[in-house]
Amino acid sequence: MRYIKNPMEIEKTSFEIIGREMGEHNFTEAQLQIVKRVIHTTADFQYKDLLEISEGAIEAGKEALRNSPLIYTDTNMILSGINKRALGTLKGNAICYVNLEEVHKEAKEKSITRSMAAVEKACDENVDIFVFGNAPTALFKLRELIKEGKAKPKLIIAVPVGFVGASESKEGLEELNIPYITVRGRKGGSTVAASIVNALMYMIVER
Amino acid sequence: MRYIKNPMEIEKTSFEIIGREMGEHNFTEAQLQIVKRVIHTTADFQYKDLLEISEGAIEAGKEALRNSPLIYTDTNMILSGINKRALGTLKGNAICYVNLEEVHKEAKEKSITRSMAAVEKACDENVDIFVFGNAPTALFKLRELIKEGKAKPKLIIAVPVGFVGASESKEGLEELNIPYITVRGRKGGSTVAASIVNALMYMIVER
Repeated sequence: MRYIKNPMEIEKTSFEIIGREMGEHNFTEAQLQIVKRVIHTTADFQYKDLLEISEGAIEAGKEALRNSPLIYTDTNMILSGINKRALGTLKGNAICYVNLEEVHKEAKEKSITRSMAAVEKACDENVDIFVFGNAPTALFKLRELIKEGKAKPKLIIAVPVGFVGASESKEGLEELNIPYITVRGRKGGSTVAASIVNALMYMIVER
Repeated sequence: MRYIKNPMEIEKTSFEIIGREMGEHNFTEAQLQIVKRVIHTTADFQYKDLLEISEGAIEAGKEALRNSPLIYTDTNMILSGINKRALGTLKGNAICYVNLEEVHKEAKEKSITRSMAAVEKACDENVDIFVFGNAPTALFKLRELIKEGKAKPKLIIAVPVGFVGASESKEGLEELNIPYITVRGRKGGSTVAASIVNALMYMIVER
């Protein structure tokens, strides 16, 4: 059986197909790199209409990534999906605390989700970029902490997926005055989240 | 801010919403558990029409899972997404070889993808369940090896996503005479793949 076997060639051809099929749009060249990579990851063209990138978010993300970024992820799947070679080149670090013993304990004691307890811990450590692909509760918690002046990340990638709270957790992000990239409505998820992080890194790192 | 904080309650409510909104269907109770979990993971109701579960695939999957299963995944994201507590209860093991040094070397020497080299290695180790969420090339390779009599897994979860080869890699799976669960067309991905594995495990393991 004959098929393309070169990963970079596969990706290049995929992006060309996506460009042809996505039709008209108003994205900048940089925004387009994020939109296309998310569609590449999901094969779901709806993301063209659901993705929202706040003004200056890409520049803020790139700036953060250039300075040994500390990246928080709410799932181990996102952590796995972030390109470690690119992150290494940037001298960056990515963390996911949901499986830590102390986070489990804290969550149980306070009757909150592990993701919420993980966010509290992360806020003590000056995370640069928060990435949410799963837990609306964690994103709600971060929003509270930002409003209380206890956190001031450089970028929030807010793409929780789901039917209970996910959509609501992503509404009104502009009121935080923090650059953000989000997916309106119920869609999102760990693969979407990781692809956004990777798209930003690939803007400044040779692959 | 008030929101549901109990993870199991969130999931239960989510599944109820999915059941209400998905409309009429012909799924069995067991199939429905897979379909709902995939929709839960993606917030994408199209999966209701795209998922295809071959006759006996759920029973074959459960049977394999009950016997200390060895599960191959083509991405580290799937590996991360598989519920390790459930897998541990089943005395199972999950492996992903794409980052192994020897697999890199093999791929480079043969000018094939790392996923293809990883499949070749896995076939020597009698994998019970193959799970593909990303690499059509790896699924093509497994199909070749099965036809050559070099592999005979108990179940294939075939959900590569993408624009180059993904759809084709999932066509005609029935000719292999191996039970399979697939997503027709371009959609799929690591979160979809992991959710199918988890749905099968949750049928036989207390959570």
